[in-house]
Amino acid sequence: MGALHVGHVSLIHRAKQEHDCVVVSIFVNPLQFGAGEDYFQYPRDLESDRLVCEKAGIDIIFAPLASEIYGVGETTMVIPPASLTSGLCGRSRVGHFTGVATVVTKLLNIIQPQRAYFGQKDGQQLAIIRQVVKDLHIPTEVVACPIVRSASGLALSSRNQYLNSEDLGTAASLYQALKVAETTFNQGEHDGDALIFVVKEHLSTYIASQQIDLEYIELVDLVTLEPVARVVAKSMLAIAARVGNTRLIDNIILNVNSEY
Amino acid sequence: MGALHVGHVSLIHRAKQEHDCVVVSIFVNPLQFGAGEDYFQYPRDLESDRLVCEKAGIDIIFAPLASEIYGVGETTMVIPPASLTSGLCGRSRVGHFTGVATVVTKLLNIIQPQRAYFGQKDGQQLAIIRQVVKDLHIPTEVVACPIVRSASGLALSSRNQYLNSEDLGTAASLYQALKVAETTFNQGEHDGDALIFVVKEHLSTYIASQQIDLEYIELVDLVTLEPVARVVAKSMLAIAARVGNTRLIDNIILNVNSEY
Repeated sequence: MGALHVGHVSLIHRAKQEHDCVVVSIFVNPLQFGAGEDYFQYPRDLESDRLVCEKAGIDIIFAPLASEIYGVGETTMVIPPASLTSGLCGRSRVGHFTGVATVVTKLLNIIQPQRAYFGQKDGQQLAIIRQVVKDLHIPTEVVACPIVRSASGLALSSRNQYLNSEDLGTAASLYQALKVAETTFNQGEHDGDALIFVVKEHLSTYIASQQIDLEYIELVDLVTLEPVARVVAKSMLAIAARVGNTRLIDNIILNVNSEY
Repeated sequence: MGALHVGHVSLIHRAKQEHDCVVVSIFVNPLQFGAGEDYFQYPRDLESDRLVCEKAGIDIIFAPLASEIYGVGETTMVIPPASLTSGLCGRSRVGHFTGVATVVTKLLNIIQPQRAYFGQKDGQQLAIIRQVVKDLHIPTEVVACPIVRSASGLALSSRNQYLNSEDLGTAASLYQALKVAETTFNQGEHDGDALIFVVKEHLSTYIASQQIDLEYIELVDLVTLEPVARVVAKSMLAIAARVGNTRLIDNIILNVNSEY
């Protein structure tokens, strides 16, 4: 969606390592914004993005108009399984993942890449795209790339531009809380409720003072996104919260086999 | 869906004329049959189909299992615009065209053909597939092929196997009625209601005796499937009716520019 940051650049570098020709799509997708969400505020700076891509050695930027992607009138929609879209962010962002699945299907069919690189930061989106690509037999390999963070630990996001300096400090606590849970997990605690409690406890002062409005903290299976009571295979401990008016998400992957 | 007849063979011959390698998909798609429809009765004879394909010089038959197409659990669905799916056959076959759109998207992504050949007999299906391929930017050209008919005029269909000899005579009247409307059109009558009246009048004896249960006779735009009051561009005069227990469809294209 443009407003490229170092997280995006990490995807570009990975793609450049593995391919001769890399295409970057830049498209703020109206279909994945709900009523009252920040479609019109969402940061856009195509010239800055172009320079980032040029510096990273990108061959092609694909930045279509909404009318080129959606035409006029109703469009065909791609609806992922409800089991993947109804939980986590799907509870508050109704229709969001249908919009994501639809535009990603279009972009993959237009560009026809061998591989497509997505950030683990949007963990639910990634699981959904994997499922859509598998279900529709789209001949593209989905590659997940690790979350890139600022020095404070805050997961990079174009929406971090909305945060003032106080918010930035508050926002960093989200990852710190996940890290405390990860440490607890590594010490042998595999129970979901216990790990969730650790996160909430770490954030309790911010929550009490309403500096953080916690939307969810959940432990789910990394692939199916079904809630899990214990970490038994790859699980995702995912959080969503508002800091000021800005909705942020983050996650860590917990794996009893400790390989990912 | 297999049970290949001369109509299918005409698609194969057209494809063979235009391409070195032709793939025939044979898949009775559970997702496009509604509750109470004939999924389990639908004719299947893969060995006979194989011989038809061999004789026609087909290179590859793709006849997957339902489990290979749909996996386990919920699948991602492809939902065409409601304006295309809600009318005509969509009124009685709820969910049918979603099933068609979903399986065709999967098949096109698996086979990745340059062109895909569909019969005009399933006129609504054809318009929907054109729209899905356009909307999702699937890199395949959709080619429409004319309806192939028996000597009586009956449009060939795998479901004609359900008809006894009396039914076959009754069923042929559907096309005869469309032909009378076409003659009336060619004589200068472009009004939708007038053309529909001609069809109903031709079928009135069968309808009165309940040998034909008319589901719809409609004049619609060939591309948008919106009902039209007059033939002004390419229009489709489409009919659906039951003869005995067998649901049949047919259509003719009317064009004021008389080129299709």
